Amino acid sequence: MIHILKLGGGAGVDHAAVLENLAVRIQSGERWLLVHGTSDAANRLAEQVGYPAQTLTTPGGHTSRYTDARTIEIYSAAAGSVNQQLTAQLAANGVNVVGLAGPNVIHARRKTAIRAIRDGRQVIVRDDYSGTITGINTDLLHTLLDAGMTPVVAPLAMGEEYERLNVDGDLVAANIARELHADTLIILSNVPGLLRDVNEPQSLIPQFELHDLEHYETYAAGRMKKKLLAAQQANAARVILADSRIKRPIDMALAGGGTHIIASTLTLNSSPSGRGTSETVFAPLLHEGEGVGG
Amino acid sequence: MIHILKLGGGAGVDHAAVLENLAVRIQSGERWLLVHGTSDAANRLAEQVGYPAQTLTTPGGHTSRYTDARTIEIYSAAAGSVNQQLTAQLAANGVNVVGLAGPNVIHARRKTAIRAIRDGRQVIVRDDYSGTITGINTDLLHTLLDAGMTPVVAPLAMGEEYERLNVDGDLVAANIARELHADTLIILSNVPGLLRDVNEPQSLIPQFELHDLEHYETYAAGRMKKKLLAAQQANAARVILADSRIKRPIDMALAGGGTHIIASTLTLNSSPSGRGTSETVFAPLLHEGEGVGG
Repeated sequence: MIHILKLGGGAGVDHAAVLENLAVRIQSGERWLLVHGTSDAANRLAEQVGYPAQTLTTPGGHTSRYTDARTIEIYSAAAGSVNQQLTAQLAANGVNVVGLAGPNVIHARRKTAIRAIRDGRQVIVRDDYSGTITGINTDLLHTLLDAGMTPVVAPLAMGEEYERLNVDGDLVAANIARELHADTLIILSNVPGLLRDVNEPQSLIPQFELHDLEHYETYAAGRMKKKLLAAQQANAARVILADSRIKRPIDMALAGGGTHIIASTLTLNSSPSGRGTSETVFAPLLHEGEGVGG
Repeated sequence: MIHILKLGGGAGVDHAAVLENLAVRIQSGERWLLVHGTSDAANRLAEQVGYPAQTLTTPGGHTSRYTDARTIEIYSAAAGSVNQQLTAQLAANGVNVVGLAGPNVIHARRKTAIRAIRDGRQVIVRDDYSGTITGINTDLLHTLLDAGMTPVVAPLAMGEEYERLNVDGDLVAANIARELHADTLIILSNVPGLLRDVNEPQSLIPQFELHDLEHYETYAAGRMKKKLLAAQQANAARVILADSRIKRPIDMALAGGGTHIIASTLTLNSSPSGRGTSETVFAPLLHEGEGVGG
């Protein structure tokens, strides 16, 4: 049974508490894989080299990092550096860890034409080096996990022309969770979970089933939309969106903290290899024949 | 039988020809591990962030990168980026490759007091993040090699306090060669090999035996001293110092190009595990009992 942890790359994410907690769980015999973000580090390096980060805004209001040829260099170097730091910190906590900023873990297709709004006008951006994830190097990940090692994966993919591509960390974690038939995906960031009112932490939605995702999407704004998309793509027994800024954030998430998105038993049974099914902890009440949205 | 290739990080090193050549050899069934340098990329990134590279000069005239806290950040990011680029290029040539900029492949001890000359006076530098290699994560490397993968290793080590340390790429390659009982170590850079006269490419020394190293050290200046130290540490059947700026540089090196430093049969037989011994291609004429210098 494999668990995937995504640790956000935003400012204010407390790595130390997360990594200590992760190390304790790994040492107790659990198998984990860590995926990290890199946004804050990429922004800082971009600032240092005098080429500040820019944002693309789609006509639908989605925003993403504008990753031109120079930015992908900056982004990649920052991703590598964050990967090294997390690898070293996990090692310091006694974990047999392998840093993978490859970019040979994730395969992606470059987005060659992105619709965006610039100066109030719609344009097509053709020089962006971001990608849509198309595959995961599961051979490598299984080889390392089977040898008792904990992979740490950066959000950097290889394109079809072997170019480096910026890919979303939450979706990397989700794709790895799906391809490794992970039981649990925990996405930690600097928010408590999905909130009915983004300004009111007390409005946290504690749990819902994956087939109700469309309903709950109405509460998501900004980065949270991507996390819900990740929950949909992960195909895990449970996806937990939780807060990294607390003590023992993984334990707290597993004990019911944050927002739990629970898969139906049906979905899990239809998993191609059937792996993970028998070990499912949660068995949400579902009527047979009931489908799962998306 | 494992072969180690060190590809220099200096300006003017032709990666494309080397990587194509390496890919062909791996696809023919040979097992290789690639170690790369990062000096030119680190210098360029340092320039870009407005914190240009500085040099330490020892009283003995050795020079090295002055790696203070800010420089190790720059150096690490650059090492990660070079690692990604080489990994992508090898993948583009059809190799099942794994980029390792960890820093969990190499363990080192930080040099906490370096004697250096500054403004004509001898000083002790205590804020340097460079290290002396103390160990190699052979478990990880064997796991990957046994799975048919080609590791690409950056010259970045983890210190005893889990800090990132700048380590010499030639010595990384040598230590890996020794710990994996490699048959051959090829060190490619932008020089033809060891020259009797550094300004005269025709003065190339084609071959000598490792026990004669002290004699040949008198011809080495600058970076070449480090390459000879690497040859000494590698304990391989042959170490080849050769030119990367030619067509099929690996084939040319193996066919006799560059400077070949040949171990005595005696040394190989005294290898603790005995691995690599039976497959030794070269059996230089040596009188029994003849020792090996250093």
